[in-house]
Amino acid sequence: MRVLGVDPGLTRCGVGVVEGVAGRPLTMLGVGVVRTPADADLGHRLVAIEQGLERWLDEYRPEFVAVERVFSQHNVRTVMGTAQASAVALLCASRRGIPVALHTPSEVKAAVTGSGRADKAQVGAMVTRLLRLDAPPKPADAADALALAICHIWRAPAQNRLRQAAALHASRTPTAPNSPKGRSA
Amino acid sequence: MRVLGVDPGLTRCGVGVVEGVAGRPLTMLGVGVVRTPADADLGHRLVAIEQGLERWLDEYRPEFVAVERVFSQHNVRTVMGTAQASAVALLCASRRGIPVALHTPSEVKAAVTGSGRADKAQVGAMVTRLLRLDAPPKPADAADALALAICHIWRAPAQNRLRQAAALHASRTPTAPNSPKGRSA
Repeated sequence: MRVLGVDPGLTRCGVGVVEGVAGRPLTMLGVGVVRTPADADLGHRLVAIEQGLERWLDEYRPEFVAVERVFSQHNVRTVMGTAQASAVALLCASRRGIPVALHTPSEVKAAVTGSGRADKAQVGAMVTRLLRLDAPPKPADAADALALAICHIWRAPAQNRLRQAAALHASRTPTAPNSPKGRSA
Repeated sequence: MRVLGVDPGLTRCGVGVVEGVAGRPLTMLGVGVVRTPADADLGHRLVAIEQGLERWLDEYRPEFVAVERVFSQHNVRTVMGTAQASAVALLCASRRGIPVALHTPSEVKAAVTGSGRADKAQVGAMVTRLLRLDAPPKPADAADALALAICHIWRAPAQNRLRQAAALHASRTPTAPNSPKGRSA
C-alpha cells in the first residue's frame, strides 16, 4: 500500500510518501514540506496548501492519506491554524475518494519508537532507520509526515480487521435494513 | 456591495447574502444552512460543506465573504470542527479571488444590537428588523450568517479607510523598493 502522510501546519505542512506492507521493509517515495508565507492572509495560505497537496496527490497517487489528529489542548493560536490546514488535507483526499485516517501524535510515536512520549530526535532517528535513509529528513515536520505514513501502514491490518468485524456485526443485527420487523417480539 | 456571511459549523453552516451600503436600508437576497450528517466521516463532511458553499457562491456571486472568527476558548470538540468548517469557507472564497473578512462574535453582536454581549434572540430580532423580514430566520446559525454580512457592510468603510492609509504610508516610506538607499544617512 502507498500512503501519503500529512503533518498539518500553516507555515510548514510536512508531506511524505511511503510504500510497503506491515512486516516487510518500507520504501520512501518522496518527502517534503508545503510552506506558506506567514504574512499572507489566511485564505490565501489555505489555497497555497491546497495547491501544494494537490501536486503531491497528482504525482504520487496514494491509496491512503494519513493526517495527524489535532488536539486543542496545545497553544491556542497554533492549534487553530493546524486544524484549518488539516481540514484542507482531509478535503483534498476525500474529494478524490481517497480514504483518510487520523492518527494522534502519541499513536505515531508509539508506532515508530515504541513509546508514545518519544521526542522529535527519536522519531527522526527511527524514521531514518526504518526507511534506510542516510540522514533524518529535515525539517521535523517532514520526518513526522513519514512517521504518520509508517504508522498507518503498520496499524492498517488491525484497523481493517476491526472494520470487518463491525461490518459482520451490522449484517447480523435485527435492525439491519433487510431484516424482518418484530422478529424477536 | 453584496456580502455572503458564513457562520461556520460542521453540522449546520449558516449562510446569508445581504446587499446594500452603510447608511441605507439593506436587502436580504438569500438565507439558509448547509448541513452535513453527524455520522459521516470528517473528510466527507468537509467535502459536503465545500459543495454547499460553492453553490451559494455560484448563485449569488458575492463581492465579499464575511466569516465568523473562531476562538478556541470554547468547547474543545466543537471548536475544532468550527475551525475546519471555516477553513473550507476561507478556501472557497480565496480560490475565487473574493476578499474574506473575519469578524468576532462580539463585533457582530455589537454591530447589529449595540452590545457585544447580546443574546441569540436579540441578534435574531435586530436582523429581522434591519432586513425588514416577517420573522427571525431559523435556525440561529442562519440569522448569525445574516448578522455577519450586515456587520461587514457597516464596518467596511472604516476598514477600507484604514487600508488606504496603510497603502499611502507604505508608498511614502524610504524603505520602499524604488527609493534611493542611505537617503537619511
